[in-house]
Amino acid sequence: MPPIPSIRGVLAPVITPFDRDLRPDPKRLASHCRWLVTHDVGLAVFGTNSEANSLTLDEKLALLDALLVAGLPPARMMPGTGCCAFPDTVELTRRAVVNGCAGVLMLPPFYYKNVSDDGLFASFAEVIERVGDPRLRIYLYHIPQVSNVPITLTLIERLLASNTRSMLERFQPEGFDVFSGSETYLLATLRGGGAGCISGVANVNAPAVAKLAQTWKNTDAEQQQAALDKVRAAFLKYMPIPALKAVLAHHSGNDEWGIVRPPLMALTAEQRQNLIAALVPLDFSMPGLRPS
Amino acid sequence: MPPIPSIRGVLAPVITPFDRDLRPDPKRLASHCRWLVTHDVGLAVFGTNSEANSLTLDEKLALLDALLVAGLPPARMMPGTGCCAFPDTVELTRRAVVNGCAGVLMLPPFYYKNVSDDGLFASFAEVIERVGDPRLRIYLYHIPQVSNVPITLTLIERLLASNTRSMLERFQPEGFDVFSGSETYLLATLRGGGAGCISGVANVNAPAVAKLAQTWKNTDAEQQQAALDKVRAAFLKYMPIPALKAVLAHHSGNDEWGIVRPPLMALTAEQRQNLIAALVPLDFSMPGLRPS
Repeated sequence: MPPIPSIRGVLAPVITPFDRDLRPDPKRLASHCRWLVTHDVGLAVFGTNSEANSLTLDEKLALLDALLVAGLPPARMMPGTGCCAFPDTVELTRRAVVNGCAGVLMLPPFYYKNVSDDGLFASFAEVIERVGDPRLRIYLYHIPQVSNVPITLTLIERLLASNTRSMLERFQPEGFDVFSGSETYLLATLRGGGAGCISGVANVNAPAVAKLAQTWKNTDAEQQQAALDKVRAAFLKYMPIPALKAVLAHHSGNDEWGIVRPPLMALTAEQRQNLIAALVPLDFSMPGLRPS
Repeated sequence: MPPIPSIRGVLAPVITPFDRDLRPDPKRLASHCRWLVTHDVGLAVFGTNSEANSLTLDEKLALLDALLVAGLPPARMMPGTGCCAFPDTVELTRRAVVNGCAGVLMLPPFYYKNVSDDGLFASFAEVIERVGDPRLRIYLYHIPQVSNVPITLTLIERLLASNTRSMLERFQPEGFDVFSGSETYLLATLRGGGAGCISGVANVNAPAVAKLAQTWKNTDAEQQQAALDKVRAAFLKYMPIPALKAVLAHHSGNDEWGIVRPPLMALTAEQRQNLIAALVPLDFSMPGLRPS
């Protein structure tokens, strides 16, 4: 079978909608994913900003199925699949791979701390072997400020040089792709030969972030980057996930978008108002967003 | 129905046996639990030392069922039930409660860091309400060196003072029980009015740790504590979980006890030999252990 073309540009760790009973809402998720894809933003569903680790395995499997049934393109998907227990990681990864997802974003097991590179190597190797599918393309998810489990350069070298080398070569015919974990580094990443960024703020600022990825060789690239940074700074005054959800609630006209699962807390009405107000002078907009 | 008497004394976060395919072995777990209970050590199955966060929800449910079917007493059990996603926590907690477990040991959701006390409060409250069973008795699991999510005194006060006050009063007719997280603090905890300890080393040093809990008012209590500390120090030269498993492998004659799930790594043969040798002059023994 032909290799799936590797994913590039901007992806959003897609925020996950909940109803008032804290159940995930697959229909609203599909609608938001459609808006993102329309604006050329790929779907890193089940990332940190997706509250993925507040979702059960069954909920993630059901949401992924729902997106596929809704017709969203797996070639634009990079689901987060790294769980604490490797059998969960295997099951979710396999589901993504058999459905043709462009890749998976894999956290290391994150409960036990100060584990060795040997142990992390064994974790990834176990998953790769058990999934056992040449279509698997893994993106290692390095987010030590949350996971507290860094992925070291030594570990990456070992994964590339190990028994799994032949697999990795098949999965990554274009080599080793790097995405920065924020749109703040988008221009620098692209100039340095990177593939793009995975940006929480792209959940709402999708058109502007995607535009920089498309036009980063233009003369206004630095201006674009500066504008993105200003929008980002407005969000960073709050807990990022509730802030993103508050803005989507406002622009979609659906207050349920503001709901988060504990241990996160929704923005207060005052915080939300202040955030919305702070975005106005920054030319922030969400064009084409339909009520959901 | 009559309240379940509250659990006191020493509990072990029971180490979880795996076979060579890394599947949990319920029969071997039951056999080890029986040895612990015989030596008056309670069963904090699915604790940190149990590699609980390397087990899937379904694996934990199946292991708990297997222990109950094997006739192990739920009145001596305090399963760890805190998962990242609250629906998992609810399901595992409910299973423990309906089966008459003495309590549950509940980690806070541990992926997201720097969450507010409001958010942690909401997490525990959500679980308490959804389990909705007056028999539920929660032990809050404070292990910030691993979870990176501390349970603050303010949070405890709020849980006690909140809407759930009436529930907590029913669950804890004897008030608020404190277990230290290591046998090193056992004597000090008992002298300070605490309930006991949850001790990883009690997995193997069960008789000696339990003896101190039974005889802590005796004149040799400090000597006993010093002897426990020496055994503990021998283990702490290694990663604790693989070290405990190595010693149980040696004393049970079953090498499969040495197997850990990634991201942990088993002790090397040399490390195991050195650890066993270091325990010899410390009068360490596992009386009555049957080959498993």
